[in-house]
Amino acid sequence: MTALVVSAHDRMLRAKDSARTIGLLTSGEKTAALRAIAAQLDADTDVIVAANAEDLERGRANGIGDALLDRLRLDDGRVAALSSAVRDIAELPDPVGRVLDERVLPNGLKLTKVSVPFGVVGSIYEARPNVTVDITALALRSGNAVVLRGGSAAESSNAALVASMRAALSTQGVDPEAIQTVDEFGRDGARDLMRARGLVDVLVPRGSAQLIETVVTESLVPVIETGAGVVHLVVDASARADWARDIVVNAKAQRPSVCNAVETVLVHRDAAPRVLPGMLSALKESGVTVHGDTQTSAYDASVVPATDDDWAREYLSLDVAVRIVDDLDEALAHIRRYSTHHTESIITDDAANAERFLAEVDSAVVMVNASTRFTDGGEFGFGAEVGISTQKLHARGPMGLAELTSTKWLARGDGQTRA
Amino acid sequence: MTALVVSAHDRMLRAKDSARTIGLLTSGEKTAALRAIAAQLDADTDVIVAANAEDLERGRANGIGDALLDRLRLDDGRVAALSSAVRDIAELPDPVGRVLDERVLPNGLKLTKVSVPFGVVGSIYEARPNVTVDITALALRSGNAVVLRGGSAAESSNAALVASMRAALSTQGVDPEAIQTVDEFGRDGARDLMRARGLVDVLVPRGSAQLIETVVTESLVPVIETGAGVVHLVVDASARADWARDIVVNAKAQRPSVCNAVETVLVHRDAAPRVLPGMLSALKESGVTVHGDTQTSAYDASVVPATDDDWAREYLSLDVAVRIVDDLDEALAHIRRYSTHHTESIITDDAANAERFLAEVDSAVVMVNASTRFTDGGEFGFGAEVGISTQKLHARGPMGLAELTSTKWLARGDGQTRA
Repeated sequence: MTALVVSAHDRMLRAKDSARTIGLLTSGEKTAALRAIAAQLDADTDVIVAANAEDLERGRANGIGDALLDRLRLDDGRVAALSSAVRDIAELPDPVGRVLDERVLPNGLKLTKVSVPFGVVGSIYEARPNVTVDITALALRSGNAVVLRGGSAAESSNAALVASMRAALSTQGVDPEAIQTVDEFGRDGARDLMRARGLVDVLVPRGSAQLIETVVTESLVPVIETGAGVVHLVVDASARADWARDIVVNAKAQRPSVCNAVETVLVHRDAAPRVLPGMLSALKESGVTVHGDTQTSAYDASVVPATDDDWAREYLSLDVAVRIVDDLDEALAHIRRYSTHHTESIITDDAANAERFLAEVDSAVVMVNASTRFTDGGEFGFGAEVGISTQKLHARGPMGLAELTSTKWLARGDGQTRA
Repeated sequence: MTALVVSAHDRMLRAKDSARTIGLLTSGEKTAALRAIAAQLDADTDVIVAANAEDLERGRANGIGDALLDRLRLDDGRVAALSSAVRDIAELPDPVGRVLDERVLPNGLKLTKVSVPFGVVGSIYEARPNVTVDITALALRSGNAVVLRGGSAAESSNAALVASMRAALSTQGVDPEAIQTVDEFGRDGARDLMRARGLVDVLVPRGSAQLIETVVTESLVPVIETGAGVVHLVVDASARADWARDIVVNAKAQRPSVCNAVETVLVHRDAAPRVLPGMLSALKESGVTVHGDTQTSAYDASVVPATDDDWAREYLSLDVAVRIVDDLDEALAHIRRYSTHHTESIITDDAANAERFLAEVDSAVVMVNASTRFTDGGEFGFGAEVGISTQKLHARGPMGLAELTSTKWLARGDGQTRA
């Protein structure tokens, strides 16, 4: 008799069951499993690219647009990049088994707090097949099983990638049920995953602000929110003009489509005459459209008048909002109102203002005299990035492998009872 | 013109606004504020006890039962105990501002990860007025504002306690809006609190399993779950009979109404003839009713036959379920099926079995040869206990003040841009 997979729930049960053995693998065993995955992805490149071609064809037929098609596309080079990323993750230090606290109670009971895998990590994401491999490798390196729900536009690609990775685990004697997808159950799969409290330990949404909002709102499984970035730069009265110009241009134009790109620049009115002309001109040279308040518009005829909507926008494009503020208080009030608590930076030569900004701004990363583009797990030296958390629970800011672990207290006694 | 409080939402806005200044208080200022709260509670004892008398009278009229009335009751001694607890919390080390990580990037950007307050801590709890004071003191010590929603049966008591604590803050020049209650908005207050994502940073339910389940299921605000304890003790084949007897009796009978009390004992069949008679007899002497499987019943006529429901029950009373298992595998399988992942302990003289149990049991605290009653913030040396988390995100096991903080990355540069 063949057991048929009948539901997403069944897939998650398998993941949970496999998590017991995955969580007990040694660091070396996990490294070997990930190396095998990388090799298998290389070996299966033709199959993966062919599956991806089906998704691309369906996508074109559905008119999903060039940008989405590009994100969806896998070719030989991109599959090689995926396997290369897995090889990098394979060699990262094992985040499991770290001793985080030790204490001996007066009665002799020995307590040790250690890092342990979550168990089952779920992820809901959009039509980027690279996330399928990326989140799987990160989950396995940290001793977790994984349940994936990718965008339907990438369903064939994801199925091929999952099949390849599961086959690799089998060659290593590692339970292939540790990698599950619920893609074929469509919306029901996503819904079941969000309701799988007790089966899935944490859910990491990756994608648009709308997707993340849906998951945060609907999920009964605890979520790590990797949110939108309405990122601010403040140009203080004492800001050096060249730093302000270079940092603003870098934060906006170096890669405008990512969450750590700046969206709003707040310029102290005392700095405006000295700083703004050069900054606006440099932004224009970089192809950036400036949406400015009335005062900013006075400096350059090409400035587009900003509306109230602009202050709340995450452009993710070569657009930036610029507003002139009376003082640091007004800048901080603006940030309180519009920030998504991702990253904010101040350009200043005033040490007191710098420290005030660091203390008062309630964001995951708060910077002085640096580009907001540094908010990144790779830049921070984590070796890999699970995402950038904009919530305050569990993890905040760039997340590495350690953020895919929980903790457990071990207590070793010799007959202790409580008085 | 007097500003009228028109909604629970308005109360939460005030809390959020106050959180900015509360979060910047020095350790000394917070200590002074808490000492003032303790003194004010002492000074207001008569008012508080009188308000509590109203609640007790209403409770009696509503027939809420003696156990609930006792939990609800405040007299001079209990108010003194509340203020004493606040004085203890006032002197605990400040959990804010700890440096948790430091790194300097190759380009010279200096990164510092520091602990920061959450901002606004919400709590939904039942008719225990002590929680009103306890959670407020813990929140303030960790630099947070607090929004309280206590049980309606304690509404007058809570109003008097909140008024007293707010008055104390005012005498210290600390914003009294940092302490808010939404009790008078009834169920709407609880609902608004659970939906206050963006205003309230974390919600800590305290009370029955049903209350916690409701909050976990309905809240859009991130929750720290302080859950039920279906706690297991395993008596291994090699268990010392005296340790097994003393630990089981202590874990069940020393305080049966709390979450770390044992609910199920799993006895290895090879240990049963040697260990069970003495254990059952000691349990009987302590007034404990044993619900046993058929094999256990054979040892003592007073054993009540257990049904399947017994294995899932958190008795919180002088009842315990006892089952004889074939081996450690069967004990581990039973725990996987019925545990609420709070605390489990094994009594064993076999080092390999001890280490296997520690590694494989997926609970917040896993013990060897010790009473499960040690799972407690006070016993662990935390100085105070926010609750015992049974979730894996953010905090697991007994939570101290550190668990009421989040983190923030500070980045100090001198013009760095990303290449």
